[in-house]
Amino acid sequence: MTDIQNALELIARGADEIIKPEELEARLRLGRPLRIKAGFDPTAPDLHLGHTVLLNKMRQFQDLGHQVIFLIGDFTGMIGDPTGKSATRKPLTREDVQANAQTYADQVFKVLDRERTEVRFNSEWFGQMGAADMIRLAAQHTVARMLERDDFAKRYAAQQSIAIHEFLYPLVQGYDSVALQADVELGGTDQKFNLLMGRGLQEHSGQAPQVVLTMPLLEGLDGVAKMSKSLGNYIGIAEPAIDIVNKTMKIGDALMWRWYELLSLDRSTADIETMRRDVAAGQLHPRDAKLALARELAARFHGAAAAEAAIEQWTALVREQRIDVDLPLLELAVPAEGIRIAPLFVAARLAASNSEVTRKMAERAVRIDGVVVEDRERVLPPGGEHLLQIGKRAFARVRLGSA
Amino acid sequence: MTDIQNALELIARGADEIIKPEELEARLRLGRPLRIKAGFDPTAPDLHLGHTVLLNKMRQFQDLGHQVIFLIGDFTGMIGDPTGKSATRKPLTREDVQANAQTYADQVFKVLDRERTEVRFNSEWFGQMGAADMIRLAAQHTVARMLERDDFAKRYAAQQSIAIHEFLYPLVQGYDSVALQADVELGGTDQKFNLLMGRGLQEHSGQAPQVVLTMPLLEGLDGVAKMSKSLGNYIGIAEPAIDIVNKTMKIGDALMWRWYELLSLDRSTADIETMRRDVAAGQLHPRDAKLALARELAARFHGAAAAEAAIEQWTALVREQRIDVDLPLLELAVPAEGIRIAPLFVAARLAASNSEVTRKMAERAVRIDGVVVEDRERVLPPGGEHLLQIGKRAFARVRLGSA
Repeated sequence: MTDIQNALELIARGADEIIKPEELEARLRLGRPLRIKAGFDPTAPDLHLGHTVLLNKMRQFQDLGHQVIFLIGDFTGMIGDPTGKSATRKPLTREDVQANAQTYADQVFKVLDRERTEVRFNSEWFGQMGAADMIRLAAQHTVARMLERDDFAKRYAAQQSIAIHEFLYPLVQGYDSVALQADVELGGTDQKFNLLMGRGLQEHSGQAPQVVLTMPLLEGLDGVAKMSKSLGNYIGIAEPAIDIVNKTMKIGDALMWRWYELLSLDRSTADIETMRRDVAAGQLHPRDAKLALARELAARFHGAAAAEAAIEQWTALVREQRIDVDLPLLELAVPAEGIRIAPLFVAARLAASNSEVTRKMAERAVRIDGVVVEDRERVLPPGGEHLLQIGKRAFARVRLGSA
Repeated sequence: MTDIQNALELIARGADEIIKPEELEARLRLGRPLRIKAGFDPTAPDLHLGHTVLLNKMRQFQDLGHQVIFLIGDFTGMIGDPTGKSATRKPLTREDVQANAQTYADQVFKVLDRERTEVRFNSEWFGQMGAADMIRLAAQHTVARMLERDDFAKRYAAQQSIAIHEFLYPLVQGYDSVALQADVELGGTDQKFNLLMGRGLQEHSGQAPQVVLTMPLLEGLDGVAKMSKSLGNYIGIAEPAIDIVNKTMKIGDALMWRWYELLSLDRSTADIETMRRDVAAGQLHPRDAKLALARELAARFHGAAAAEAAIEQWTALVREQRIDVDLPLLELAVPAEGIRIAPLFVAARLAASNSEVTRKMAERAVRIDGVVVEDRERVLPPGGEHLLQIGKRAFARVRLGSA
């Protein structure tokens, strides 16, 4: 394989879509460092693994010798919510923006190569632009095409109001690509429409249109919904190494391979394929594959020593709790609305009746994933894997499938 | 009647709509000069009587002691056509704008009182505004409400493209009212949507919303279509006095009363009503009522002496041409697509056959409204009044009705 083919393969790893692959190949053949743009929200960043999918892709471009532009969209952030309806979207001050940029830097340089990263702010060019420039920019797109964007189309159809400035924001994002002369723009699949905007505006300005590469949204700990803070199914990159290890060790096997593909920088696609075959052949225990992933993630954000300590701590904890992590995995079908604690323990044959579970809960003798459960109303949703414990000795590993 | 009632009656004369009359009355009761805004296009102005409908209304406000703001929308004029599709809408330079403003001044102060007129340019405030200000402005309106505007609704339904900046222009016009703190905005009925925009933006800025007064579009010489340069049914205010008189003397009686209402500043509504009754009672010849209107219009744009001379010239011309303007008016029904010259003259009993008319045309002996007609293919549309002449002595006055 040629270098270009190798590069194309690495770039395509995990990507949802590349528009257009032949243009990407042509750019790579130019033999110069490409300008790889990715835009970030200027509001207080608190990154989780979901965000690192994009950062990893940026890192891969850097490893191939390209220049990454970490663009902070502070121009619109400093406007806030111009309708004045959202109390939570207060305009950011220049100081807020600087402070948030520092918070970003503290986090993202655990993944990105500082030497090959240009941190930019779009207020740099939009702060100079007049009202007339915004009108000229708005003239480069039509109402009908803007209403084709999924969320606009749905809101318009549902007669939910769309303020006119919302039509300007995708143009602002697109114009950033013109200002930065981006060769490639990266974003989540939910950003595709906005990324394509840059192509049109660049063409209009006489630039070759940027290649657009979209990355899928990472599934969270439950293996179903996308990782997000509000769903609570995330691993924050600032979390202690032991939490990263603990949480990673609890994900399902299918999700583990997905995370390997999108989150591992140490393992090549070929390495992952080999591990997968070994697990399937019974030559590698899935727990060990998961431990390797947990180790890599913990090491990325806390260094190799801290990662090793966390792995040891996890192992000791498991041993101390006399939890047999090799317990067979029990597949339980639960309804879509989830299952309450008592019937779950009965189904897992750890108790004879709901009332027995309830009694044990009152004695603080019921644990899920090592944590005492006292809330009798608590419901576990389908989609997760858990270690159930009742008293000192009775354990079960369950995977909750959909009924 | 109180002064306020008199003022309200004068302001309402000829108006299509006042939004809202009770607000107008309340403003008038404030006892201070109101700020009366009307916006004008910054491209080379060449005014005709149609434009003076608005100027007259402005003048009436001035006569009532109010301050008129003659606003030239140079901000968007200097942008030109931002899509670059229209070669004819080149961006104006600041010099163009100044030159056009001078051309306006040369014309409009034949109607407006210079002392009570403030000439303003919206580049004054929009030139200072940044891209962020434009975004904030755009946030004050929704896509759905903008698409309710008649022409946008039609174009969107017909899948004709609407560029996004077209949604910004009504907001620009509306914001002008905020910047000028307008009490009242005047415009043609076709401007109603844009005038209402000002009300919303003023409320949003904590100002009392302006009163909106729309004036109808003046019918042109044909009495049917609105007066416009492209239809050729206009009287330009820069035309020689004799042309103003000639053209005015040819309009139909119904149109004459309409013009009196919208174009006369000398005659009160009561005066016009009296004339109307006198004509109906046979005590005033409609020609004399028309002569008085022609004299007023010619005098406005060329002074009393020039108007008098033009009236005399017209009278002499009519006498010399031995045209009996008292000829009975023949009502002819013609199809919607109009009637050709030869059958028209036959229908008016001025010739026995189409071929006779054609022969006379070749001899340059056929005239319509005093002008030799040579084009055999020419078609006269329904809706006009004409003086037909064949040879030296044969005349007919016809009104072309719809078949």
